[in-house]
Amino acid sequence: MKEGWLYLEDLYVGQRFEGGAHHLDAEQIKRFAAEYDPQPFHLDEEAGKASMFNGLAASGWHTMALTMRMLVESIPLADGVIGASTEVAWPKPTRPGMTLRVYTEVVDIRPSRSKPDMAIVTTRSETRDQDGEVVQVFTAKMPVFKRPAA
Amino acid sequence: MKEGWLYLEDLYVGQRFEGGAHHLDAEQIKRFAAEYDPQPFHLDEEAGKASMFNGLAASGWHTMALTMRMLVESIPLADGVIGASTEVAWPKPTRPGMTLRVYTEVVDIRPSRSKPDMAIVTTRSETRDQDGEVVQVFTAKMPVFKRPAA
Repeated sequence: MKEGWLYLEDLYVGQRFEGGAHHLDAEQIKRFAAEYDPQPFHLDEEAGKASMFNGLAASGWHTMALTMRMLVESIPLADGVIGASTEVAWPKPTRPGMTLRVYTEVVDIRPSRSKPDMAIVTTRSETRDQDGEVVQVFTAKMPVFKRPAA
Repeated sequence: MKEGWLYLEDLYVGQRFEGGAHHLDAEQIKRFAAEYDPQPFHLDEEAGKASMFNGLAASGWHTMALTMRMLVESIPLADGVIGASTEVAWPKPTRPGMTLRVYTEVVDIRPSRSKPDMAIVTTRSETRDQDGEVVQVFTAKMPVFKRPAA
């Protein structure tokens, strides 16, 4: 058992976690994009202005990756923050100069039929900018385990 | 108009695209994890063996980011490969030594009611290892635009 960490018995529907902040700049956006999402509107300010983003915008997967880091740092699940299946949407672009935070709520806990020591926990995480506007909504179904016998 | 690129008129349900390959190694897995998903089973072989992954495993967001790069390189959409909302699931872990490829199919094209030059195109992308086993299933709804008037 890991002291100070969360097991299934510690979770409840309506429970909330907050993480961050992460300050995003153009260099980070371009570096992630160059390696994983090399599209012009993620790499260059002028190309961003000419695109549907109307300015340089981070790859959605960069926003997700930064959110994951904030989740790992803010939800101390003993067996890890591991998504089995997930949904991600981006209501507005993530841009240079934003300071991101993540706000998570446990929305469902469904005990496994086949594994009595496990449940599938559904979380909904909003990634918000410094003005509280939502840039990403992330829903995850995660296997979470009970505290092991002493 | 961008010559050689795809617009809405060029897409059809059942259309397929293939991308890759990307060869993954432990250094890449640990580097991504250190920045975006610093959990022990993504950072260290021994911790991986002690986890539900039973060995070092890539962050799911690393698999997704690598998939995004292969999608960008294999689907030449004129206005960009931009997800509005997405689903991602990982049927099995992504590990060092795997060679990844992505196989995409257009599964739905839904014209916008409000914007006559646009449709929401749904794609389903399987990321497979060198043995053809599926490590990730990614579904995206993307806005795609018609060819602009000359």
